[in-house]
Amino acid sequence: MTRNELIDLIKNKKSFLCIGLDPDLSKIPSHLLGTDDPVFEFNRQIIDATHDIAVAFKPNFAFYECNGIKGWQSLAKTTQYLKKYNVFTIADAKRGDIGNTSTQYAKTFFNPSQSGMDFDAVTVAPYMGEDSVKPFLEFRNKWVVLLALTSNKGAFDFQFLADKNSQRRLFEEVLTKSQHWGSSENMMYVVGATKAEMLTDVRKIVPDHFLLVPGVGAQGGSLREVAKYGLTKDCGLLVNSSRNIIYASNGVYFAENARSEAEKIQQEMEGILSGV
Amino acid sequence: MTRNELIDLIKNKKSFLCIGLDPDLSKIPSHLLGTDDPVFEFNRQIIDATHDIAVAFKPNFAFYECNGIKGWQSLAKTTQYLKKYNVFTIADAKRGDIGNTSTQYAKTFFNPSQSGMDFDAVTVAPYMGEDSVKPFLEFRNKWVVLLALTSNKGAFDFQFLADKNSQRRLFEEVLTKSQHWGSSENMMYVVGATKAEMLTDVRKIVPDHFLLVPGVGAQGGSLREVAKYGLTKDCGLLVNSSRNIIYASNGVYFAENARSEAEKIQQEMEGILSGV
Repeated sequence: MTRNELIDLIKNKKSFLCIGLDPDLSKIPSHLLGTDDPVFEFNRQIIDATHDIAVAFKPNFAFYECNGIKGWQSLAKTTQYLKKYNVFTIADAKRGDIGNTSTQYAKTFFNPSQSGMDFDAVTVAPYMGEDSVKPFLEFRNKWVVLLALTSNKGAFDFQFLADKNSQRRLFEEVLTKSQHWGSSENMMYVVGATKAEMLTDVRKIVPDHFLLVPGVGAQGGSLREVAKYGLTKDCGLLVNSSRNIIYASNGVYFAENARSEAEKIQQEMEGILSGV
Repeated sequence: MTRNELIDLIKNKKSFLCIGLDPDLSKIPSHLLGTDDPVFEFNRQIIDATHDIAVAFKPNFAFYECNGIKGWQSLAKTTQYLKKYNVFTIADAKRGDIGNTSTQYAKTFFNPSQSGMDFDAVTVAPYMGEDSVKPFLEFRNKWVVLLALTSNKGAFDFQFLADKNSQRRLFEEVLTKSQHWGSSENMMYVVGATKAEMLTDVRKIVPDHFLLVPGVGAQGGSLREVAKYGLTKDCGLLVNSSRNIIYASNGVYFAENARSEAEKIQQEMEGILSGV
């Protein structure tokens, strides 16, 4: 999907909501556990109930891989199912390896004839630098979502270290250097909502890039704060919510309840987009 | 596997060789392509031919994931097959996510009843800090191999940035802080052989930890240099070679040729371990 197509999607749906598909067998409704593939069935119902108010869906690979081959089958079926709708799809896999190996990883997410999966974007960890990221950028209309400032407590361990020469903190170095690897047409950055005020510093370096913002809801971030510091004329934000939406309830009506939660967020987003 | 068991394995085999199982369908011998699972068949023959002179095997997940579900089947079969031999197994997956999610990833590698896979160790990327690493350390006799100084060109992008307060470079910060997360009984570090002289600086911070050293051979690193700067009284090194061994030839005798290459390295290691 191109940047313009993504912007159109946001305008049409009046939403910049990304829903994290992180199905945990210990949390999904018990009436699904007897089905052939409970994880896929859970995802399918969530997707059907929310696709018109979410612009993006983001399966986190950890929640599939932990179930081994069966988990990869659920994941492959989910990505196939998402093709039914006009949505942006993000493989939240946080990969990254030496160039030769990142090329193989890129095929996993972007080459459906080999892997059976076809995402629009993949999250990538920056620690190993340029050659670990660039192979993902060689696919037309595909995106890298590079970790910059994450939403967890451990973000403070390394991401805020300030280089003695440039005075830039590590996340700012990542934002600065990586701009030479791709453009705002094929790169986004993860910036956690739990550090919304930091978006001012982020926007100084990447005024136009889309940001994928996790941490709204369960992790404590505020949507208004994120929009205040991060919104651009093209929106420039995809705000993710996972647990708050997909585990809104665990009864028979879990999908309807997930939609209700997603609608609340979408309506707040509609207000933000219209400048209210 | 415990640290003492690993040290015994090194002493008994007179080797600290780790073989990287990175099977690429475009490179493996053509006579295997007609078999039911060429990737597994390739691995099986390499493992059978080298298990007595290698202490560790390290499948890199990228080379399996790119083949989708079929690739995960090859990987699961490979990990099962490795159980046949007394070897240390490393999932080279370079994972890492917020705590809640890293817990799921840890189950992938360390909980065979759920995932079907049971490795001794997994490589983890440090960018997201403590809570992204610790869930992997909660499994008894299982190891984290944390990226510190990688063997690729991109290592220079961020890993050498020096913090203005501590004056430590990022890889030194990773080595320093992470020692509070685990011990030399459950943590190792990746330090690339292409930067062997840096091992002196690494050993100042982690004198006892095992180091997993990639980059010998195809990437240009020297075994003698690595041993000169990195060897400890317990050996303290696992030196990985992938392409040089597994692609020694691509004819019918590829496994024998792989063994010959592995033997050359093992014999050099035997000399190093005996102080020659």
